Amino acid sequence: MSGVDSAVYLVFLSTALGILILSGIVLLLVLLPVAATDNNLKLSANSSTSNGTFNDLDKLSMGNVKANSERLWAFLIATYWVSFVTYYLSWKAYKHVSGLRAAALKSPDVKVEQFAVLVRDIPAVPEGKTRKEQVDSYFKGIYPDTFYRSMVVTDIKQVTKIWVKLEGYKKKLARAEAIYEQSKTTGSPEGKRPMNKTGFLGLVGKKVDSIEYYNEKINELIPKLEAEQKVTLREKQQASALVFFTSRVTAAAAGQSLHDQMVDSWTVIDAPEPRQIIWKNLLIKFYSREIRQYVVYIIVALTILFYMIPIGLISAVTTLKNLVKYLSFLKPIVEIVAIKTVLEAYLPQLALIIFLALLPKLLLYLSKAEGIPSQSHAVRAASGKYFYFTILNVFIGVTVGGTLFDTFKTIEDQPKELVSILAKSLPSNATFFLTFVALKFFVGYGLELSRIVPLIIFHLKRKYLCKTETEVKEAWAPGDLGYVSRVPGDLLIITIVLCYSVIAPIILPFGVLYFGLGWLILRNQALKVYVPSYESNGRMWPHIHVRLIGALLLYQVTMLGYFGVKEFRYTPFVIVLLILSLIFIFVCQKKFYRSFQSVPLEVASHELKESPNMEHIFRAYIPPSLSCEKDEEQFEDALSQVSRTTSSV
Amino acid sequence: MSGVDSAVYLVFLSTALGILILSGIVLLLVLLPVAATDNNLKLSANSSTSNGTFNDLDKLSMGNVKANSERLWAFLIATYWVSFVTYYLSWKAYKHVSGLRAAALKSPDVKVEQFAVLVRDIPAVPEGKTRKEQVDSYFKGIYPDTFYRSMVVTDIKQVTKIWVKLEGYKKKLARAEAIYEQSKTTGSPEGKRPMNKTGFLGLVGKKVDSIEYYNEKINELIPKLEAEQKVTLREKQQASALVFFTSRVTAAAAGQSLHDQMVDSWTVIDAPEPRQIIWKNLLIKFYSREIRQYVVYIIVALTILFYMIPIGLISAVTTLKNLVKYLSFLKPIVEIVAIKTVLEAYLPQLALIIFLALLPKLLLYLSKAEGIPSQSHAVRAASGKYFYFTILNVFIGVTVGGTLFDTFKTIEDQPKELVSILAKSLPSNATFFLTFVALKFFVGYGLELSRIVPLIIFHLKRKYLCKTETEVKEAWAPGDLGYVSRVPGDLLIITIVLCYSVIAPIILPFGVLYFGLGWLILRNQALKVYVPSYESNGRMWPHIHVRLIGALLLYQVTMLGYFGVKEFRYTPFVIVLLILSLIFIFVCQKKFYRSFQSVPLEVASHELKESPNMEHIFRAYIPPSLSCEKDEEQFEDALSQVSRTTSSV
Repeated sequence: MSGVDSAVYLVFLSTALGILILSGIVLLLVLLPVAATDNNLKLSANSSTSNGTFNDLDKLSMGNVKANSERLWAFLIATYWVSFVTYYLSWKAYKHVSGLRAAALKSPDVKVEQFAVLVRDIPAVPEGKTRKEQVDSYFKGIYPDTFYRSMVVTDIKQVTKIWVKLEGYKKKLARAEAIYEQSKTTGSPEGKRPMNKTGFLGLVGKKVDSIEYYNEKINELIPKLEAEQKVTLREKQQASALVFFTSRVTAAAAGQSLHDQMVDSWTVIDAPEPRQIIWKNLLIKFYSREIRQYVVYIIVALTILFYMIPIGLISAVTTLKNLVKYLSFLKPIVEIVAIKTVLEAYLPQLALIIFLALLPKLLLYLSKAEGIPSQSHAVRAASGKYFYFTILNVFIGVTVGGTLFDTFKTIEDQPKELVSILAKSLPSNATFFLTFVALKFFVGYGLELSRIVPLIIFHLKRKYLCKTETEVKEAWAPGDLGYVSRVPGDLLIITIVLCYSVIAPIILPFGVLYFGLGWLILRNQALKVYVPSYESNGRMWPHIHVRLIGALLLYQVTMLGYFGVKEFRYTPFVIVLLILSLIFIFVCQKKFYRSFQSVPLEVASHELKESPNMEHIFRAYIPPSLSCEKDEEQFEDALSQVSRTTSSV
Repeated sequence: MSGVDSAVYLVFLSTALGILILSGIVLLLVLLPVAATDNNLKLSANSSTSNGTFNDLDKLSMGNVKANSERLWAFLIATYWVSFVTYYLSWKAYKHVSGLRAAALKSPDVKVEQFAVLVRDIPAVPEGKTRKEQVDSYFKGIYPDTFYRSMVVTDIKQVTKIWVKLEGYKKKLARAEAIYEQSKTTGSPEGKRPMNKTGFLGLVGKKVDSIEYYNEKINELIPKLEAEQKVTLREKQQASALVFFTSRVTAAAAGQSLHDQMVDSWTVIDAPEPRQIIWKNLLIKFYSREIRQYVVYIIVALTILFYMIPIGLISAVTTLKNLVKYLSFLKPIVEIVAIKTVLEAYLPQLALIIFLALLPKLLLYLSKAEGIPSQSHAVRAASGKYFYFTILNVFIGVTVGGTLFDTFKTIEDQPKELVSILAKSLPSNATFFLTFVALKFFVGYGLELSRIVPLIIFHLKRKYLCKTETEVKEAWAPGDLGYVSRVPGDLLIITIVLCYSVIAPIILPFGVLYFGLGWLILRNQALKVYVPSYESNGRMWPHIHVRLIGALLLYQVTMLGYFGVKEFRYTPFVIVLLILSLIFIFVCQKKFYRSFQSVPLEVASHELKESPNMEHIFRAYIPPSLSCEKDEEQFEDALSQVSRTTSSV
């Protein structure tokens, strides 16, 4: 098993697969014959000459059933069937994932994050006390028996900068030595010492002996790093701390409890894993976090709704003509016919393509800017935002797209019309989305399976860049599963397939193929290829689940509209389903959600394999740029000493 | 000090007083001259003959300022002044109350409820275990060091019935003995043994010697009670329990923490005080509570909005004519002229008067039906509901009332109009509300101060009913402050005064008088007369506060509308205030609210005067109908014995 997070993702894939298979069997067997034997399209084609094109695919869809026909009962029952299958399987999946999470949390292995809490918004240090003393006395007072130790969070921006530089030089030194060793075997026996230029990107400046130069730089930086470490520990202490307990139950209870009379001070939450702490976000204060959150929400909403405006503007400006006009040195290149044709075709979309490629990164950046303290939480937040973007722009955008601008006036007058417009334009886009889903699994999973892009990059890197063992390893780091864009992508597919399931059931086999292949391939990839860079014990699941039921709601709303378009007298029966879905979401949130937010005490109270090594747990949280091999005691000493002077000055 | 709850109520009164005094000084000095020296009313009276009446009071109001006059700046600034005074004083009050609550919670006295938690929704008892063993092992596992003991909640409906009967007979016996003793001193020396009839209300049936009869009854009931106690303890155990800890911190943390992976089982909340537990609500399950809550909300919303319909119907049916027709034996009484006049005048309103008198009780009943486990929480909930009723019906109803039905069509078309209708009809009702506020404090507080109604009842009771010392004491039990109707009443007054403060500042002195008198009188009453029947440590405050700011919001909305009516060009400046109020509510809720919901751990960690007597704490929670003097051990024994047999059968 490669972690609960991957397992949760696979549960999602298999649930989606299950929903589509169970729906598919019934819908294909029942609805296709019902639709194919009617002749609405033929009739309307005969009666109006302008609308005379339909293909065999359309014949198999709900569009081929006459308005207010008795046959629509079959489609109504099918709508119920799909909904109940979704309720049942997603309920089972929620229970299963909840069990997985509990099992992981109650495991007898010592997990460092289960013994720590993160304390933020600590009030100003009282006169004559250090920050560490303040934190220690506060928590010792509350937890006299189980408090172990605290670690004051410092602003490590500067020290990390130096540390990254130092690590860079160390790598470069290793690389230079490797080249030197290599040259000994290939060229002259005494070898050729590698040289490099000291200026910008190694392109300009004085040429020096690399090994000597890097050694020199490293020797220069080590004392600088040590000095900065000392300064950081003493003078850059922040109003946050990590507090360690000797008991899992205490840590779990502390993470859920209010500690101070003022809710905005001494806020305590569960500590993230050391590897996924976003250190710089620990410095952000309570109200700043709140405000950032709302600002980010507004920015994202504006981006999702109006991203076409700036991109349209950029596209309008960056025509070929303008490019040539302002960057005249490009003229000779552009005038080659082949290049000109390509540029003319793709330049207008270039801004859009770049935007879409960068969007997940942008959303992740924005989510981090909210002040979220852990990587996994930021990924969840970004993934949720990306979901809204894809649904709104890809699905609703494409479906309603054409008709929307023509009928904009109508919508403004009667907002209720939106549903019926959505419903009316769905059938005509069925073919487009069939192709979309098919393309997605052929191209997407083909690439995924072969991992062709990373493979190419890897080989290029190995050939031209990598010299040492570490470098080769780093080049072939498969990294995370990339939930930010992967989960919303899958959710988009299930939304599309659900929305078309009853209208054009022929889409279901494609959906089954997508999730079937996805499950097979990802199971392999998750087990053997990807290495998760963090573990949130399945906290992704509630977000997936609520969006899955959201997709179901969208499907039910479209069906409501489409039955209305078909003038079916019993259309209001669909409203029952909408209410059921809302109740289902409500019950699921009530029953399961809180145990995904925090660790239930009963779960935390299970016994451990061995008594935890608290010293080891404490050390796990020291950021690498602050850990110092020779003087192990320095860290604590510095923390408890000098801010007393600062505060008493 | 008679408890934090009374103190909180006094803080509310003094805050309202402060707001009105600070507003009043500025508004009366500035706005009255500005309004009085203009002549809008005179002009409009001259120009139209139909609208020719205005009195001196109207001259002092904003209505006397010409439309779009520069003078409106003064009123706009006044609107800001009142808002900022409210923000400042209510913020200070929130801080003060928060401090009061913290002080009460961290007090070194042992309070039994701080050592207990209430556990509900316990899953089915596993095979071969008793309920008590199940609860004990669960909590011992989580809190090995601080768990003391548990008490399984039983269904005490039957046993309480018998116990109440028994207590009734005991009282009656004491009374009969007192009468007998009295008769010895007043009548013949051997006295006259009191007699009573055994039938309905002592009016029919066989006549018996009271003392003998009651003794007999008591002797009959005691073994019945004991038998029922045993049955209750053994067979009527429910899925709830009270769990006791030896540490305040653990109890406080437990009340805030999630215990089980499934959120709907083993739900733990802070235990209410023993005297305010609503035992029968402890039997209600998780989802039942949720559903009850929503059902009650819907019922209350319907009651508030449409209560006039059934009452109108009842009034229509219960005319004098109908009464005479169906209850012909009333005819001779009704035909007396005096009675007829009175009945004809008041009968139509009778249903309304009865409804209004019973409404607080009805709302309290409905709030209890939600499944709330503590008396104080139910009172809070009922008080909140009553507030919405008074605001909607008394304030908005009276103000908009007349105009509303005429312009109902307009509102349906343009809901925004409601604000301007409200604004337009405000000035004309100023006199009505002036009288209303004046009446409220003259009559209301007059009655309060003299406590004339309870006094009359007391004297009547003492003269004709009370025979024993206990009975006299009970008759003069001043009881609670009655927050259910008192707080909404005061909130209605501050809403009215705030809404009129700028439009007709002359209302402010009346408001000051109301709250000034209220504060003086209630301080006396709270300190010397009333005896609180429970103590929630100020949990009422957030509810008062949010409604106070709600009143401010209503005031700002009306001002927005009224400036609009006055065609003032800078009206949008009022919108800034609306946004500020929303932010203010948000910040207050964020900063303070959670510490009113639960006990902060730092507060709970303060040291106690003496180590708590756990046995005493445990006993405090035994319901009186189950406590049994002779066999102290029975309770625990019974609990731990017999349900094993039940579950293993």
